[in-house]
Amino acid sequence: MKFKVKDMDISSGGILIAVLNISDAQDLDLHSGDRIILKHKKREITAILDISESDKAVPSGKIGLFEEVLDKLKVKSNSEVTISFSGKPESVKYIRSKLMGEDLDYKQFYQIMDDITNDRLTDIEKTYFVSAGFINGFTDKETVDMTKAIVNTGDKINFNKLTLDKHCIGGVPNNRTSMIIIPIVASLGLTMPKTSSRAITSPAGTADTMECLAKVELSQNKIKEIVKKTSGCIVHGGSMNLAPADDKIILVEHPLSIDAEGQLLASVMAKKYSVSSNHVLIDIPMGETVKVKNKSQAKYLRKKFEKLGHALGMDVKVIVTDGSQPIGNGIGPLLEAEDVLAILRNDPLAPLDLREKSLEMAGILLEMAGKTRNGYKLAQDVLDSGDALIKMREIIKAQGKVKKPSLGKFRYQVRSGKIGKIISIDSDSIAKIARIAGAPIDKGAGLYLHQKSGKVVRKGELLFTIYSQNKDKLDLAIKIMRNNHPYLIK
Amino acid sequence: MKFKVKDMDISSGGILIAVLNISDAQDLDLHSGDRIILKHKKREITAILDISESDKAVPSGKIGLFEEVLDKLKVKSNSEVTISFSGKPESVKYIRSKLMGEDLDYKQFYQIMDDITNDRLTDIEKTYFVSAGFINGFTDKETVDMTKAIVNTGDKINFNKLTLDKHCIGGVPNNRTSMIIIPIVASLGLTMPKTSSRAITSPAGTADTMECLAKVELSQNKIKEIVKKTSGCIVHGGSMNLAPADDKIILVEHPLSIDAEGQLLASVMAKKYSVSSNHVLIDIPMGETVKVKNKSQAKYLRKKFEKLGHALGMDVKVIVTDGSQPIGNGIGPLLEAEDVLAILRNDPLAPLDLREKSLEMAGILLEMAGKTRNGYKLAQDVLDSGDALIKMREIIKAQGKVKKPSLGKFRYQVRSGKIGKIISIDSDSIAKIARIAGAPIDKGAGLYLHQKSGKVVRKGELLFTIYSQNKDKLDLAIKIMRNNHPYLIK
Repeated sequence: MKFKVKDMDISSGGILIAVLNISDAQDLDLHSGDRIILKHKKREITAILDISESDKAVPSGKIGLFEEVLDKLKVKSNSEVTISFSGKPESVKYIRSKLMGEDLDYKQFYQIMDDITNDRLTDIEKTYFVSAGFINGFTDKETVDMTKAIVNTGDKINFNKLTLDKHCIGGVPNNRTSMIIIPIVASLGLTMPKTSSRAITSPAGTADTMECLAKVELSQNKIKEIVKKTSGCIVHGGSMNLAPADDKIILVEHPLSIDAEGQLLASVMAKKYSVSSNHVLIDIPMGETVKVKNKSQAKYLRKKFEKLGHALGMDVKVIVTDGSQPIGNGIGPLLEAEDVLAILRNDPLAPLDLREKSLEMAGILLEMAGKTRNGYKLAQDVLDSGDALIKMREIIKAQGKVKKPSLGKFRYQVRSGKIGKIISIDSDSIAKIARIAGAPIDKGAGLYLHQKSGKVVRKGELLFTIYSQNKDKLDLAIKIMRNNHPYLIK
Repeated sequence: MKFKVKDMDISSGGILIAVLNISDAQDLDLHSGDRIILKHKKREITAILDISESDKAVPSGKIGLFEEVLDKLKVKSNSEVTISFSGKPESVKYIRSKLMGEDLDYKQFYQIMDDITNDRLTDIEKTYFVSAGFINGFTDKETVDMTKAIVNTGDKINFNKLTLDKHCIGGVPNNRTSMIIIPIVASLGLTMPKTSSRAITSPAGTADTMECLAKVELSQNKIKEIVKKTSGCIVHGGSMNLAPADDKIILVEHPLSIDAEGQLLASVMAKKYSVSSNHVLIDIPMGETVKVKNKSQAKYLRKKFEKLGHALGMDVKVIVTDGSQPIGNGIGPLLEAEDVLAILRNDPLAPLDLREKSLEMAGILLEMAGKTRNGYKLAQDVLDSGDALIKMREIIKAQGKVKKPSLGKFRYQVRSGKIGKIISIDSDSIAKIARIAGAPIDKGAGLYLHQKSGKVVRKGELLFTIYSQNKDKLDLAIKIMRNNHPYLIK
C-alpha cells in the first residue's frame, strides 16, 4: 500500500508518529496506536499510528509524518512511502521472561538492543525491560552479554592502541572533572576521546556542559579527525551511534530517575568498549545522598566494574571519592562550564575541590598509561603552566566553538536564616532545584553555591543563587527549595 | 498565558497531546514532551506537548489540540485555553518507592490512582508502577488500600441491597458465561448488573462480545434505568467512570500481557465494590496454559479473594473450574456472541460445555441469594423454558440493539495432519492466533473450533477455522499458527 507523504510539521520529541485518514485506516483495519512499517527506497522504520478524523489534517491517500519520521526516512512532502503491518517484535517475549525473573542470554539481549536501536519497541515495552532489570537484577554473565549486545548493535571506533578513558557514575552535582582531565592528558600527547552523555538524573551531564562552549554532536569521521589532531575530545556519545540502545534506555530511565545496577555497568562499559578504550578510570563518589551510600556498596560496585572490565579485556581502575556535597560551585550546564574555565585559566577564585579531584584523577590516568610514577605532580605542572587551557581551546576550536549561552535572567538569592556551621549540602535537593529551575535543557539555569560544607556563616549571609530563564520555573524552584532546603546549618 | 484552540483533527489513541508553535514554546521555554496544564472554564487537564516547527501546523498564538484533548476540555476551534506549567506529579515519588521495594499506604495509593485517573502520569510512569507491583508484589493491606483507592477515585453506583455479581479471572478463551448467567438470574427478578471489561490478554472480553449485540458504553443514569427495568445489564465498566484508574492500568498491562496478582485482585474487587455488589462469585479456571496452573495456586488465590472480599464487607465465593481448553467453540467477539445466542435459544448445536458451566455458576448465585436450595435445577428450568432468551432480548433492547458485525471474510481451514485423539488445546496459542487475526478489535475475527479435547479425528478432518477481516493479518495468523499449533493429537 503506497501513500503520498504530507509533512505534518510537528515533532513529538522522539516518538515516531504517522497519521492516516480514518477511511484509509478502516480499509486497512488499522487503529490508533497500531505499529506500522514505513518503507522508502532502502530505508525502513516502525512508526506508531495516529488517525485523522476528517480530510482536514490528512486526506485519504496521504500519510502525515511527524518531523522525526521525515528525518529518519529521509522523505519530503509528496514522496511515496509503502506501509505494511508489524507484529509485536520478538524481543517483547524476552522482556516478558526477564519480568518473570528468568535470565537472558546474549542472543536475547542482542534482539532487545537491536529492537530498541531501531525504534521497534514502545516506551511501555522499554520501561518493562528497565524495571525488570532494576528489580530482578542481572547476573554477571547477563551484564557481560548485555554490554556486548549494546556495543554490537551500534558502531565502533578504533583510536590508538593505548586509549585512556574515565567515567564517574554520577550522583554528585557539577563534578565536571572530564573537562579538566582531558585537556591535561591530551596536552601530553596521550589519546583520550571522551564520549560523554547528557544528564540522566543530574542537572547537567558533561555533554550538556561542554555544549556551552563547543559543538558536541559530531560525526564519527569528524571526531576521528579531532582526536588525531588534538589527542582528545569531549563530545556527546549519542551523536555517533555508539551503543545507541543505551541512549534510548536512558530516556526511559529518566522520568523516574532510576539507574539499575546492571544497566549502569553495561551503560558505562559499553561506551568505553565502543571507542576501543583500554585503560579506564571509574570514579565512584560515596555519600549519603548519592548513588553509593557506604563503603560496602562502593567495594561491591568496584568489584563488579573490574570483573566486567576483565571480561571485556580492559584495564579498569576504580577510585572511591567524596560524594558528600557538590564538587565545584556552579550547578547547571553554563555555571559548571564557567567553573571549568576558571580552573583551566588558574583563576584564584576557581573552585579548589574540583581542581584537586581532577588533578588526582588525571594523575592516576597518567600512571596507568605508564607516562610517569608521580602522576599528580605531572598533571599539576601541565595545569599550572597553562598548557591545559591551550589544549582546551584547541579542542573547542576543533569541535566548533559556539556562542556561550547567557545566564538565566530570573534570579533568587537564598540567605542563611541563622548563624552556624554548614554541616552538609544535599545533592539530591540541589539537583532537584536546579532541574526545576530549567537545567539541563535551559543551559543558563541552575544554582551557584557561594558556600560549601564546613564553612561558618552568619545570619543573612548569601548561601546560593538560583538562576532560571523563566519566571514560572523560578517560582516553582523556590517553592521546592523551601520544602527541601539543601543546606543543613547547625 | 492564553491561546486560541486549533482543532488538529488527529487522535492519538488515548494520549493527551497539545501542540504549540516553536516560537511560543521558546518564549515559554517549553520543549517537546513537557507536561503542561490546560484550563478552560472549570475544566483542567494535563497534556503532553508537541512542537510545530513552522506556522503551517500551528501558528503562533494558537494551540493545536488532538481529539482526546478537545473532548476532555470540551473546547472547539477558537475557544480560549490557559496554559501553565506542571511539575512532576507527587505520585511519581511513590512509584519510585514501590520500585525500591517499599510498601505503600492508602494515601499514597490514592494519589497514584488520582493522578492516573486524571491522566497526569505518562505511559512510562504508569508502566513503572505496574512492573513494580508485578515483581515486588503487594501485601494484603496494600491490596485492600489499593482497591479502596481505585474505587474512591471514581464514581460509585448503588443498586439493590442484594446485588449479585460474578467474575472470571480469565485465561480461558470464550468462557462467555456472564452473558448466559445474567439473563437467567435477572429473569428471576434478582439484581445482577454486570460491568465487564474489554479483553486484556484474551481475544475478547465480555464487553467486546456483548458489543456485537447491543451498546455497552452507557451512562450511569441509563444503566440504573436499565437495571431497574430488566434487573440486569451487561455493559462496559469503563464507560461509567467506575474505578477508572483500573481501566488505564489495564491499557499499560496490555502490551506485555501481564497481570500482577495484587493488581488483579484490586481490579476485580474494585469493579464489584463500585457497583455495590455484595454477593460475588469468582471463577478461577485451572489448567496448564491459563493463569492458574495447579491446585495450590488456585487455593492461594481463593484465600486472597475471600480475604479481600471480607475486608471490603462482601460475601465472596470462589469456584475452581476446568481451564484445560477453551469453553465454547467460537473465539473472538462475534464468534463468542453466536455461541451465547445458540445456548440461550436452546439450539441443539450449541456448545454443551459453556451451557453446563453457566448453569452451574448461575445455580451457585441463586443459592447465595437464598432463592433456592437447588440452584442448578432452577437455572436449568429458566434456560430451557426460553425465559432467559426473552430476558436477554429485553436487556439488549434496553441497552440499545446494534447491527451485528459480519464474520471475517478471509478464512483459513486447519485440518488434522494425522489420525489420533485430541489430547489438549493450548489456550495461549488459541488466543495468540485469534488476536493476530484481528480479535478483539476486529469483531468478526477469531477462530471457530470444530473439535474439542478427547475427540478422535481422522487425517484431513477439519479442526478449526481462522477468520480475519484482513488478508495480511490472516497470513500472519497462519504463520503464527504453524509455529504454535494449538492442537496436540496423539
